Amino acid sequence: MRVLVTGASGFIGKHVVARLLSMGHEVVGACRTPSPDLLIDWRVADLLAPGAAAALMHEVRPDALLHLAWCTEHGKFWREPANITWLARSCDLVEAATKVGVRRIVIAGTCFEYAFPEGDCYEHATPVENHFLYDTTKDACRRVTEALCQEKGVSFGWGRLFHFYGAGEHPARLVGSIARALSVGEAARCSSGQVLRDYMHVADAGAALAALVACEATGVVNIASGEPVRIAAIARTLGEVAGRGDLVHLGTLPDRPDDPPRITASVTRLRQEVGFTPHFDLRTGLADVYDWWRAQT
Amino acid sequence: MRVLVTGASGFIGKHVVARLLSMGHEVVGACRTPSPDLLIDWRVADLLAPGAAAALMHEVRPDALLHLAWCTEHGKFWREPANITWLARSCDLVEAATKVGVRRIVIAGTCFEYAFPEGDCYEHATPVENHFLYDTTKDACRRVTEALCQEKGVSFGWGRLFHFYGAGEHPARLVGSIARALSVGEAARCSSGQVLRDYMHVADAGAALAALVACEATGVVNIASGEPVRIAAIARTLGEVAGRGDLVHLGTLPDRPDDPPRITASVTRLRQEVGFTPHFDLRTGLADVYDWWRAQT
Repeated sequence: MRVLVTGASGFIGKHVVARLLSMGHEVVGACRTPSPDLLIDWRVADLLAPGAAAALMHEVRPDALLHLAWCTEHGKFWREPANITWLARSCDLVEAATKVGVRRIVIAGTCFEYAFPEGDCYEHATPVENHFLYDTTKDACRRVTEALCQEKGVSFGWGRLFHFYGAGEHPARLVGSIARALSVGEAARCSSGQVLRDYMHVADAGAALAALVACEATGVVNIASGEPVRIAAIARTLGEVAGRGDLVHLGTLPDRPDDPPRITASVTRLRQEVGFTPHFDLRTGLADVYDWWRAQT
Repeated sequence: MRVLVTGASGFIGKHVVARLLSMGHEVVGACRTPSPDLLIDWRVADLLAPGAAAALMHEVRPDALLHLAWCTEHGKFWREPANITWLARSCDLVEAATKVGVRRIVIAGTCFEYAFPEGDCYEHATPVENHFLYDTTKDACRRVTEALCQEKGVSFGWGRLFHFYGAGEHPARLVGSIARALSVGEAARCSSGQVLRDYMHVADAGAALAALVACEATGVVNIASGEPVRIAAIARTLGEVAGRGDLVHLGTLPDRPDDPPRITASVTRLRQEVGFTPHFDLRTGLADVYDWWRAQT
């Protein structure tokens, strides 16, 4: 299968591409600056430029589209006006894809589309709620792409990503910031860490998205580990992995009052319909990240 | 106030423009082919062309944007892929509007955004449900524009239009088809007409949208008469107005099994927050349309 991947050089995109290649698919990557790491066919395309989506699609004519590109700048992406431009260009992209005969479209969504329930988020049962411009535009992208694909007879999957972490992530993100500090012997200051989350290694998240592209499951599928964990447990496990539990200072940063107490996933669809099981458990995954930070020093 | 109206030459656009002018506003109309009927400043713009929205906005620099343009071809617009292009271009338009400092944005929505309840549709209480590509893309447009306007501090109103009718409407639409038939002495074949709807004269719908632009009400506002009426009563009233009740043949066309039994509106927001009351009652409005059809023969 010939798969066009947007955002192919991104944090998660690289892992998706690696897995698609190992599954035997032909991959064409689209990004603004080509990445030399992976031996695939790159198309340099600024998808935010009007008309770029249609031109790219006519050139590549893929069997499947995996659309990952969106604004992702740490701390900024929640409220950035660029989100609405990404929605506009994503509409152009999927419309162009259906015009050149694409058979399957998969797009990356976010767990922040859910109205946060007291238990796990279920694809078919948990209500959706618009919080910020980021999740509102993502949610809109899902609704309209689903409706278009239904009209056009195109198979459509929406991979709702929960939290993920991995080597090379932004050092201000949770796992990166703690792992970096411990790797250089600095104290890692944390909140009390009592909120529950689902954290998945980025290689697993990428592999899960690749599996979603290659299967027949339609509609929303949670991309998550299925293992709820408190932030405090992540910090303590990193301390253990580093042998520097003494540097992990829980409760020295304030808790954010608007932080949802729980964002965790049902992974029944991912396991049963996509047939995907993660490779990393939390400890192995965190050790992988810590080792990467150690290697940078 | 300088108001940019897209779709200004359309069925409802003409009436909006007339009312805005009579209220003393400066109106700039954007459309693909300029209309000579109204003495306003026209900009010929194909809003579906990539980049056109930004260029138009930079040229006009309005205080307010009233966005009416969308795909509207009778019978086709429900499922047309062009809906997703209209969503993309609408995103571009509102983003460009906020960049040139627009203070208020009003967009036309549709009563088909509602999950049809057993009673009236209330803006704050009745759930939304995606039915077709048309209402799904409209609903997405509302969600993301609202979120963007909130980030940018721009006032935003969404006029959810119920059914409207008037002189010059498509002759396949309900009122037009019956009025045309009666005006030439032909039988008007109808379904049983037992479904409840809200029908508003297009001049009132246009005036209500103009009032919505000029006021401070934010969020969704139903644009409707507030008078539930059975389709059969519309047909019978047209028969009375024409003096040809004998030509109105109710029950000679099949009822559509998927037709919602009731789509009627609460107009409390329109009355109290926008301060708008319609000019036409149903009989006067239908007589106006019948007279127009008579004048065509």
